[in-house]
Amino acid sequence: MRYYKETELDIEKAAEFLELPPSRLSEIIEKGNLRQNWDEYSNIYRFEGHAPQIENGTALIDHYGSFELVRGFPKIKRAMLLDPALKGNFSQIKSVVVEEKMNGYNVRVVDYRGKLIAFTRSGHVCPYSTERVQNFLKRDFFQDHPDIIVYGEMAGPDNPYVQKNIYDIDSLDFFVFDMRYKDTGEPLEVCQRRELGEEYGFNQVRLFGEFSINEASAKITGIIRELGEKGHEGVVIKDPKMVLQPIKYTCSQSNCSDLEQAFRFYNEAGRDYLFSRVVREGFQSYEWSEDEEEFQKRCKRLGESILLPMKGTIAQVATGERLSDDFCIRVRDENVIHKFKAYMERFGLYVVLGTPERIGEDYVVEVRKINKSTTDKTMAMLEGQLWS
Amino acid sequence: MRYYKETELDIEKAAEFLELPPSRLSEIIEKGNLRQNWDEYSNIYRFEGHAPQIENGTALIDHYGSFELVRGFPKIKRAMLLDPALKGNFSQIKSVVVEEKMNGYNVRVVDYRGKLIAFTRSGHVCPYSTERVQNFLKRDFFQDHPDIIVYGEMAGPDNPYVQKNIYDIDSLDFFVFDMRYKDTGEPLEVCQRRELGEEYGFNQVRLFGEFSINEASAKITGIIRELGEKGHEGVVIKDPKMVLQPIKYTCSQSNCSDLEQAFRFYNEAGRDYLFSRVVREGFQSYEWSEDEEEFQKRCKRLGESILLPMKGTIAQVATGERLSDDFCIRVRDENVIHKFKAYMERFGLYVVLGTPERIGEDYVVEVRKINKSTTDKTMAMLEGQLWS
Repeated sequence: MRYYKETELDIEKAAEFLELPPSRLSEIIEKGNLRQNWDEYSNIYRFEGHAPQIENGTALIDHYGSFELVRGFPKIKRAMLLDPALKGNFSQIKSVVVEEKMNGYNVRVVDYRGKLIAFTRSGHVCPYSTERVQNFLKRDFFQDHPDIIVYGEMAGPDNPYVQKNIYDIDSLDFFVFDMRYKDTGEPLEVCQRRELGEEYGFNQVRLFGEFSINEASAKITGIIRELGEKGHEGVVIKDPKMVLQPIKYTCSQSNCSDLEQAFRFYNEAGRDYLFSRVVREGFQSYEWSEDEEEFQKRCKRLGESILLPMKGTIAQVATGERLSDDFCIRVRDENVIHKFKAYMERFGLYVVLGTPERIGEDYVVEVRKINKSTTDKTMAMLEGQLWS
Repeated sequence: MRYYKETELDIEKAAEFLELPPSRLSEIIEKGNLRQNWDEYSNIYRFEGHAPQIENGTALIDHYGSFELVRGFPKIKRAMLLDPALKGNFSQIKSVVVEEKMNGYNVRVVDYRGKLIAFTRSGHVCPYSTERVQNFLKRDFFQDHPDIIVYGEMAGPDNPYVQKNIYDIDSLDFFVFDMRYKDTGEPLEVCQRRELGEEYGFNQVRLFGEFSINEASAKITGIIRELGEKGHEGVVIKDPKMVLQPIKYTCSQSNCSDLEQAFRFYNEAGRDYLFSRVVREGFQSYEWSEDEEEFQKRCKRLGESILLPMKGTIAQVATGERLSDDFCIRVRDENVIHKFKAYMERFGLYVVLGTPERIGEDYVVEVRKINKSTTDKTMAMLEGQLWS
């Protein structure tokens, strides 16, 4: 039981709960694919990387020998060409439900020892999201339905992870888009989930309607064009019964706005992040049979979304300024500000806090996430170093 | 001497020649970092990946126990911001020489057992380049200067590796840009190299002139703008004495034209290839302090260079056609056609030949390099599969 002491996890019992041989679980731990969270959450473990049959980011809660699993949200695959994707994936059903895919960050909420906690996609418990969620969701749902995990998007201003002011809301809010049973991971049907959400007064992602497979492609294209103009992200297309896997489809404008955010810090911009967004543009442009004018607009939008933020960054560093990602957080409990800072620092981020300001019941504080990599690289280029 | 038999290389002697401990050389071979070429070149070995002090692509020729080294061409670093790069890298000298960087492929030529052979960057002996080089370069240079390796760019039409018809020439040709001593790897001074080239009637890359460090940035910017308009690639900036390392700087149009070629086969387009080209655009646009109109042109050019070829590819596959990279090769010796096909197949490429046509002294044959990866991926999208 070499790992018992290290992780304080009872390997035998945990393995039994996970239906894995104990030797397999030991191996998973040894490889670093099951990691312990810290402080008040040190009896919560998260799956990172590959473990068989277990979604990445799944959290294992150790209730002193009995266990609970909070499954990671399954990755939703993407349609590149909408029409064939709809026909290929939903040929067995008559109609699909279309809901908005919001541009924020994905959290899972469960009741944990009498309070709600919010897991990020990776299975960490984010102290800021956790504090926020207390104010957004009533606990009675979780008392009435302890077997259900609520999945939602944290979107809006005062967002530490995705800064987009594209929704007409004052501050960060939580929009439910899925509910699943803890033990099986099975999702609730769309209708049932929306009714339940309504009953408990949850915000939910926008429902565009249910469309027959034949009309869906035209309807969704229309929706995407409208959402694009508003700067919204896109849609998720679902089997009403949630038996077939949902698929996502997004707007060009949102794609480009992602690139615009990423290329302010060009030196950290993921190569795959860039590539995948660029490829989406090519497929959409083809499927929409764009005329020369529309196509030129798309080309310009794409080019500009990369070059404009880069130029801004170089100009900023040239004046001697350091780059930072600046945002506000809004909390009710002032202690959460420092907890959140410590949480960011755990991930190796360097964060500078402003002075908290009282607004109504809340404290609002400016956070500057200092960016070293792109600042240093840009400075090096300005000083005459060569690229490589 | 486990590797003696396998590689037929006398480890002891080769190690002595390379000034490495024999155990170190054995290790390099074991790791696959020194590999044997084949057929008539099976006594030539090439360095792949990391070997200490040895350029990637360096060839080791085994003359039955005595050895010869044909060093790989050292990677030339790139200026992102021209002016600071010039000042940072050439502060110790008064002036720099500027030569054209042509857009073709880099080969090294040496005399090998009475004929000239052409190494590609990786240290393979390309049968096509080897045949061509016989006709471009007279052997007398190599007899008079057996201690010198000639480095040049193979550019122009009938090019199997880089298809760009941007030079005013009828067929593939060889343009010398460097000469180095075999034993030390030391380069000849620019002047001396150009004189020697002229003396033996070699084609050489264009010389733009020698500029003082202070005026160089403005002059080179002017040259780059002109070259860009013609679709040429860029320049290499050199210490006339070739003591300091040269640096390269390229045109936006050439960058974009690289992307245009790459994105016809978008599924194989390297993530790093895309990223590095995009970043160059950002730096150049900043350094040139472009006005809105110029900047918009650059954005459009960048976006179009990615999306236009992708759309073409999807449309082509939608008609049921398979994608291929089509080019001609032109040879004097008809046997080289099949040798070249076999050579391509060694690299896992599937190649279809047309019927050779006699043109003057030469045979010209169309080659189709069939592209499977992007064809298959595009077909899958058209059939409704999801991206991932």
